[in-house]
Amino acid sequence: MKKVLITGFDPFGGQAVNPSWEAVRLLPDEIGNWQLIKRQLPTVFHKAAAKVLEEAAAQNPDAILCVGQAGGRKGITPEVVAINLREAGIPDNEGQQPVNVPVVEGGPAAYFSTLPVREMVKAMEAEGIPCGLSYSAGAFVCNEVLYTVLNRFEGTATRAGFVHVPFLPQQAGEKLPSLPLEDIVRGLTAAIRVL
Amino acid sequence: MKKVLITGFDPFGGQAVNPSWEAVRLLPDEIGNWQLIKRQLPTVFHKAAAKVLEEAAAQNPDAILCVGQAGGRKGITPEVVAINLREAGIPDNEGQQPVNVPVVEGGPAAYFSTLPVREMVKAMEAEGIPCGLSYSAGAFVCNEVLYTVLNRFEGTATRAGFVHVPFLPQQAGEKLPSLPLEDIVRGLTAAIRVL
Amino acid sequence: MKKVLITGFDPFGGQAVNPSWEAVRLLPDEIGNWQLIKRQLPTVFHKAAAKVLEEAAAQNPDAILCVGQAGGRKGITPEVVAINLREAGIPDNEGQQPVNVPVVEGGPAAYFSTLPVREMVKAMEAEGIPCGLSYSAGAFVCNEVLYTVLNRFEGTATRAGFVHVPFLPQQAGEKLPSLPLEDIVRGLTAAIRVL
Amino acid sequence: MKKVLITGFDPFGGQAVNPSWEAVRLLPDEIGNWQLIKRQLPTVFHKAAAKVLEEAAAQNPDAILCVGQAGGRKGITPEVVAINLREAGIPDNEGQQPVNVPVVEGGPAAYFSTLPVREMVKAMEAEGIPCGLSYSAGAFVCNEVLYTVLNRFEGTATRAGFVHVPFLPQQAGEKLPSLPLEDIVRGLTAAIRVL
Repeated sequence: MKKVLITGFDPFGGQAVNPSWEAVRLLPDEIGNWQLIKRQLPTVFHKAAAKVLEEAAAQNPDAILCVGQAGGRKGITPEVVAINLREAGIPDNEGQQPVNVPVVEGGPAAYFSTLPVREMVKAMEAEGIPCGLSYSAGAFVCNEVLYTVLNRFEGTATRAGFVHVPFLPQQAGEKLPSLPLEDIVRGLTAAIRVL
Repeated sequence: MKKVLITGFDPFGGQAVNPSWEAVRLLPDEIGNWQLIKRQLPTVFHKAAAKVLEEAAAQNPDAILCVGQAGGRKGITPEVVAINLREAGIPDNEGQQPVNVPVVEGGPAAYFSTLPVREMVKAMEAEGIPCGLSYSAGAFVCNEVLYTVLNRFEGTATRAGFVHVPFLPQQAGEKLPSLPLEDIVRGLTAAIRVL
Repeated sequence: MKKVLITGFDPFGGQAVNPSWEAVRLLPDEIGNWQLIKRQLPTVFHKAAAKVLEEAAAQNPDAILCVGQAGGRKGITPEVVAINLREAGIPDNEGQQPVNVPVVEGGPAAYFSTLPVREMVKAMEAEGIPCGLSYSAGAFVCNEVLYTVLNRFEGTATRAGFVHVPFLPQQAGEKLPSLPLEDIVRGLTAAIRVL
Repeated sequence: MKKVLITGFDPFGGQAVNPSWEAVRLLPDEIGNWQLIKRQLPTVFHKAAAKVLEEAAAQNPDAILCVGQAGGRKGITPEVVAINLREAGIPDNEGQQPVNVPVVEGGPAAYFSTLPVREMVKAMEAEGIPCGLSYSAGAFVCNEVLYTVLNRFEGTATRAGFVHVPFLPQQAGEKLPSLPLEDIVRGLTAAIRVL
């Protein structure tokens, strides 16, 4: 049995919940061949990335799948790429709001995800879940986590990636799209099965 | 046991499916105290409304709930009101595209739905389904059906209403929101339970 | 020369500006054959409607055009109809938040606008402005104002209507559409010209 | 006086116009210190990028600013980064629809734009134009052009970047946002002034 370290974030931006953690905690402990190690990350620059690396060192997983909230998106979106940029439209949970700062000084401009993102999308489509590839994880804490993990595990057997999920209905108000929690759980389950 | 006549539409506007009928046909034959009589309507001015009236005459239902597709909406939306207007941005399935024509010559400007629309929204919210009241059923075939039915059953014990549902994921493309079919079925089930 | 009473609202819902008043105040005092009488309304149930009626009594205008903000809309939308319903998703500027209350007890379910809404849309389209008919003015203060005015002037020569305008760019954040103030002014100007 | 090579694309995806070229051709020949050299590119993989490089070789510009259509966006968006990926949701104008192919075999995962994208956004905001940074130019022809140009001029004095613009009102239908052509012209003008 293989091991996947899967993470969700705590709430940020004035929200009461974060659908990424709500969904991750509802996942079963095993999906197909995969044993799930679930952890919550703080929505804080540096700390979130540090915690993933620490847990990865402790658990030695075969794969790392970080999940985050992307309010306003219409479906579940595996991220294709992480860029070497920290830039925040809102403060993180400790008030940090960097502008135009690299994640890793002197690092490459980007890393591509090493998870099978296109297969993950196909698996979710087959379940009737709104989903699609995303070519941008933004430049907030989510992107920093993905960049950091891909940077750390470059050239190793440990594969890593990120999936953004939409708001839950109670977060979305009348102007933004959302997805029921059950669908997010169902989508992540389908995606993990094909890791 | 009470009887509800529930309808969905056939596909229109170049779509291969209509989520309203896809969901209606998947509903069970009984929900709570309600026996469901399911019918498909053509997306055609005059004919859809005529068919509902005909089925209603044959079945003598306690309630009539028509369901239609509203591509671009983010959730399931019980309609509060129908207006006395036919006006089409696209042709119906027989090529009719009226502009600024009343549904019923000399009829009142509008009728309010006689279903408990606010309770229906609360019941769907309790299931975690994206939903909300809508104050406009548009001016296409859906609105005509609702206006016609409310006009016909005004002052009787037969209650009537309309619910719009979003696109399915396979219809939406990457730019529009959608909802999995399971959620539409689940939402309609919750709404029917409180009729 | 004919006289149009044109109104905009004060800011509400935590916004610093209301594009309806920002645009109305920038309009010239004359457009084509029309002399403009500009007034600001409070975003308060009862008071806004009372103020329009009062100004209309004082000014005896040929037409009344109320303008309001509809955050999240993509273009300028003349309203086709007002419904006999007060229902608020957020409190007005004095904390009122009615649910399912008629504007006029025993009044008709709706009134159609008596302004040439389709010509107004065509005039704005000819200017390249994003616009379209709207079949719902909602159930907040805007709809109450329109319903009240149409109710008051039913059967008279005074025509009345309502136009909703989108957020300004500084209000919209990154998730909602908006329109530059210049375009709103340009659109209203074109619409007034064809009243 | 400095020289900027500025490009727009021809229509694609069934559209009758491309707002990028419509706007570029309306720009004046000089803006501030900048002389504009305007060219239209075909929406075709390889050919668009080849034409920019060819024109750049002929003109030896100080800056290259490519403009493209991003239907569904709400404002004008300077692109922060180009990624080494060709992936098309729809065919280009010669029927090519690559999936998961690099722009440059063995090239770096991404390049950051060398234009002052944050100043460009500030300049457009000051004009009241809906705008914002974008962290993804997609993976269609637009991204390929930007990646190719940044790859070619890496380490040289020639700066390069890309700006995506929304649909025009006549393209958008009722479900998608758009921006009047005048605003796109005004926004690009403000952005070029601060190159």
